[in-house]
Amino acid sequence: MKVAVLGAGGYAGSELLRLLTDHPGVSALWAVRRGEEARSWPQLAAAPASCTLEEAKEADLIFMSGPHGAAQRSAGEFLDAGVSVIDLSADFRLPEEVYAQWYGPHAAPQLQGQAVYGFPELDRAGIAQARLVANPGCYVTAVTLALQPAARAGWIAGEVVVSAASGVSGAGRNRPELSMGELAENFRPYAVTGHRHLPEMERNLKACGYSGPLLFLPHLLPMARGILASISFQPSRQLEEQELFALYQEAYAGESFLRVQQELPETKATLGSNRCDLSLRSDPHSGRVLVFAALDNLVKGAAGQAIQNFNLMCGLPETSGLPRAGLWP
Amino acid sequence: MKVAVLGAGGYAGSELLRLLTDHPGVSALWAVRRGEEARSWPQLAAAPASCTLEEAKEADLIFMSGPHGAAQRSAGEFLDAGVSVIDLSADFRLPEEVYAQWYGPHAAPQLQGQAVYGFPELDRAGIAQARLVANPGCYVTAVTLALQPAARAGWIAGEVVVSAASGVSGAGRNRPELSMGELAENFRPYAVTGHRHLPEMERNLKACGYSGPLLFLPHLLPMARGILASISFQPSRQLEEQELFALYQEAYAGESFLRVQQELPETKATLGSNRCDLSLRSDPHSGRVLVFAALDNLVKGAAGQAIQNFNLMCGLPETSGLPRAGLWP
Amino acid sequence: MKVAVLGAGGYAGSELLRLLTDHPGVSALWAVRRGEEARSWPQLAAAPASCTLEEAKEADLIFMSGPHGAAQRSAGEFLDAGVSVIDLSADFRLPEEVYAQWYGPHAAPQLQGQAVYGFPELDRAGIAQARLVANPGCYVTAVTLALQPAARAGWIAGEVVVSAASGVSGAGRNRPELSMGELAENFRPYAVTGHRHLPEMERNLKACGYSGPLLFLPHLLPMARGILASISFQPSRQLEEQELFALYQEAYAGESFLRVQQELPETKATLGSNRCDLSLRSDPHSGRVLVFAALDNLVKGAAGQAIQNFNLMCGLPETSGLPRAGLWP
Amino acid sequence: MKVAVLGAGGYAGSELLRLLTDHPGVSALWAVRRGEEARSWPQLAAAPASCTLEEAKEADLIFMSGPHGAAQRSAGEFLDAGVSVIDLSADFRLPEEVYAQWYGPHAAPQLQGQAVYGFPELDRAGIAQARLVANPGCYVTAVTLALQPAARAGWIAGEVVVSAASGVSGAGRNRPELSMGELAENFRPYAVTGHRHLPEMERNLKACGYSGPLLFLPHLLPMARGILASISFQPSRQLEEQELFALYQEAYAGESFLRVQQELPETKATLGSNRCDLSLRSDPHSGRVLVFAALDNLVKGAAGQAIQNFNLMCGLPETSGLPRAGLWP
Repeated sequence: MKVAVLGAGGYAGSELLRLLTDHPGVSALWAVRRGEEARSWPQLAAAPASCTLEEAKEADLIFMSGPHGAAQRSAGEFLDAGVSVIDLSADFRLPEEVYAQWYGPHAAPQLQGQAVYGFPELDRAGIAQARLVANPGCYVTAVTLALQPAARAGWIAGEVVVSAASGVSGAGRNRPELSMGELAENFRPYAVTGHRHLPEMERNLKACGYSGPLLFLPHLLPMARGILASISFQPSRQLEEQELFALYQEAYAGESFLRVQQELPETKATLGSNRCDLSLRSDPHSGRVLVFAALDNLVKGAAGQAIQNFNLMCGLPETSGLPRAGLWP
Repeated sequence: MKVAVLGAGGYAGSELLRLLTDHPGVSALWAVRRGEEARSWPQLAAAPASCTLEEAKEADLIFMSGPHGAAQRSAGEFLDAGVSVIDLSADFRLPEEVYAQWYGPHAAPQLQGQAVYGFPELDRAGIAQARLVANPGCYVTAVTLALQPAARAGWIAGEVVVSAASGVSGAGRNRPELSMGELAENFRPYAVTGHRHLPEMERNLKACGYSGPLLFLPHLLPMARGILASISFQPSRQLEEQELFALYQEAYAGESFLRVQQELPETKATLGSNRCDLSLRSDPHSGRVLVFAALDNLVKGAAGQAIQNFNLMCGLPETSGLPRAGLWP
Repeated sequence: MKVAVLGAGGYAGSELLRLLTDHPGVSALWAVRRGEEARSWPQLAAAPASCTLEEAKEADLIFMSGPHGAAQRSAGEFLDAGVSVIDLSADFRLPEEVYAQWYGPHAAPQLQGQAVYGFPELDRAGIAQARLVANPGCYVTAVTLALQPAARAGWIAGEVVVSAASGVSGAGRNRPELSMGELAENFRPYAVTGHRHLPEMERNLKACGYSGPLLFLPHLLPMARGILASISFQPSRQLEEQELFALYQEAYAGESFLRVQQELPETKATLGSNRCDLSLRSDPHSGRVLVFAALDNLVKGAAGQAIQNFNLMCGLPETSGLPRAGLWP
Repeated sequence: MKVAVLGAGGYAGSELLRLLTDHPGVSALWAVRRGEEARSWPQLAAAPASCTLEEAKEADLIFMSGPHGAAQRSAGEFLDAGVSVIDLSADFRLPEEVYAQWYGPHAAPQLQGQAVYGFPELDRAGIAQARLVANPGCYVTAVTLALQPAARAGWIAGEVVVSAASGVSGAGRNRPELSMGELAENFRPYAVTGHRHLPEMERNLKACGYSGPLLFLPHLLPMARGILASISFQPSRQLEEQELFALYQEAYAGESFLRVQQELPETKATLGSNRCDLSLRSDPHSGRVLVFAALDNLVKGAAGQAIQNFNLMCGLPETSGLPRAGLWP
């Protein structure tokens, strides 16, 4: 497959380059350059081949990893040229009216209906047939994986509280307010009411049978990568810890990138890998159920998941080119 | 006042030395040495004077900052010798039966009744008269300050969820599992059911009128100092954000170390200071109320609060020797 | 003394506010606001009083902590209005022709001659008489303190190699290239030839009797504050370690903020303090002498040293308002 | 190839497991368990198969990554059983008498002569024939790669000063003095005279034609992984920067893991990869030549280099299983 990456100057884009360089299913890899020369990333052994936006139409598939609003303006052209599209922004994740409410009017509403939501653990078959895939959000991936089995089992009664934290790479590049001086030795909440990832999370849970609201409290961590979601809810009945583990282990049996584990998960264990680690607790004191999920926001939360979708779309083994081990220490 | 510090080899103990060295109410300061020589701390301009446990009985007041179990064995002797005691461990924070349930039998149950709980914002008058003061826990200080006004107002209906995170200094010294290699770029939950600080938190809230259970989810941050508590609850009725701010601002008017602020608090703003920063939100989507509190676990969460108690006990201005500004960046 | 701070929106400026707020010799403290409102710093317990540039002429002394080029345009006006000036930029540190060579033409060359170089350990008497003081650079302070005694003793034969590293706060605010994502877990050299601090270092050493060139290799550390200089040189004769210690201990006996210690220094021991820790080694294998110096770049390397100068200028105890203990851990 | 890893409980050992799990030349991979159960590493997707020391003799090759002293006691047995050995400790890196001087008596001096020093860029042919390979030290790899071309060219006159810094993973696990609380926001030198890696560095340089002493100043960085060596020396004649680049580019043309680059290298660019990035400067001011090298101490500095040796010994492509891109950010 010939593959292009649009938005290679951002973190998700450069992570795509890192992972696609050695991908066995990729015969040609181009970073799309726009006007000025592509940024040269220090971590890559060599600068990737580059092409213009027009030349990228020779590719079989294009990954779009720009900010929201970018893909909706160019996806149509690529699809018309016979190029499949995987978009990592919010552009095709939501129904038209929900998108408009959170982000404003959409430039290509006719494509919103065609897009397949690229969450492999929810819809492998749909992704395998898709030509336009909307890659999920990073926090959304962690929260959905953490709650899906309980939601499907009808075990969530309500009062779902999601406390989550992300490394700063989730906030993008070139932002002076993310300077090391002010973030090192610092921890803080942000956007604790009305975060834009909420509608995507709630849509996913609704699809699994739980339609109540979430409280979503994101925090910024003094580190580069990693997301941890610490979730609790009122169960529909008293649940033993072993029931919880049995439910999740069965739900995720056969998944290559999900690990349901007894130990509480930690972000560093997933660093650089496409894994999401999950654990569960039943708290007799408060009567609530606890679920924890950890992943690397740039891999399973962005570029890795996009490549997982790519693998499904191309009929390759789902694990092709995707590390399952993290860096430790 | 002549002052001794027992347990100066630990972090809270050395923080006491840092803050007491220049304290205007301290005429003599000794670190108690036990057997081997006192550890020489690199941050202090000079090694503090030291004394034996026996010699420490010449002091007017002794700070005890050892692990739980240590103060209960020696506090009596000091009190008998006319030395006031401020203990930073859990030894005198809880009623006898609660202590026994979480920590095992107590060596000096007769003293448990005499001890005054040293939470200045809850009981200034009591502390001013006390000879044995139990300094509160670090997480407990943040959570109590965050919930006290709402609890007193009767605004908490239930489902209180506390997600909290601490820098590693809260876990003590000399523990190989706290190595930088494994904690840098890492974030993880721990002790999410049955944390030992729970009974102290719930006792404090009960004293303010709320008797339901808490869910307490502590996490370990990749940094040295700082605690953030991110709390949410079901309110007893719909609350506007400005009502919340008005309640807290009134409750904490006149407090030197508490800042109720519009912006969400961040731990680094309190680094090295005795301040606790608080903020509030009313979330219309979930219907829950949010409270956030940030402090330095070794200052307002330990040594600083102990010195605040010391000031009250000595009739000194409550702010003596206690920084209100943090280090930034 | 009534004191104003110009440039309070930068890190050195806000550090001045932190330290001057509780300074016993300061009766009024104003942050100069320019056009838009002063930035509200999260670490300060309350916003400082502010004034216009014009109103600042009511002060007895003004600290200028803007970028180079700023003070040279306004210092004259303040001096004419009877306000003493301490400038933290490079504007008055160098002789006219040297300044011009590194920074371009100077707007107030007539003032360059009047300025006193504010290095307390080199020239207390001069500073006490000065009305315009040029506060030294951060790296320069560490290197000068590390080499001064050896230079005066004539013990440096040549081949002086200074490897130094600084936390990112030394590079200022609002620079996207200092983002935590790219600096965490990273260490790198920069400006290894022709760093602008070189002429100031070499001027200081020349004043102490050593006129050879330095090699100065600065590095950027993944942390907020702290400078370590690791220096080696060819000695003029074989030197025993105890001779070295004796020389430095004698040279710095009586200094409040310098500690000559057996253990190798570490930056964190000086965090938030005005101390500089020094140690020495004689390496029999290479025949070179090693000197190490650690300090907090925003305190002894900037704001603290400026306040030390202020104390000298006002006849206050040199240690007034300046912490000697660092934060640990 | 069937491969065993002895010492999988350490960081280099677990890094071997990470890299060998997906290695195309490995048909079976076992972690040797000793007495108690093998540590379960959180970053690996699944626990590796394990075997006893005796069972490991069924392997074709064993990696030994224990502390020095371990391999010398068991390597002989494995060689006798027909198992090739790659040892990551210092046990077989030095000639008998040099080893004895730095580490004490050796348990298997007869093997010291047989061992091949496993530095691929110095001796590919030797490694390809070897049955016992001594993997180089981490600092040694950086310094040797940085100085080799200049040494061979006869361009080093003397006064070689190596300032180097390493992330804490280089110091091993389970050491309380490496706690995050005391190392975060800290930077310090250690072992600045007589570091055990010196004889290995000097031996390598001597083999390339430079026999003078090095000054080696190691420092500890507040991060997990990464080594930067910042080196300067007096050149044998004045050297232009472009001559330097030409020399190094030619020397390392064709090397898969070495990048001679204009920009100064940074450790994070090599995170998790087997790359070493190098750059050069000629400083007209001091007359010295500067060389910088960055690598990941656990990959090119340990496990990755060992696998590079393994590839050479097995006749596999030298890059098999070894990432060339780092993690960024």
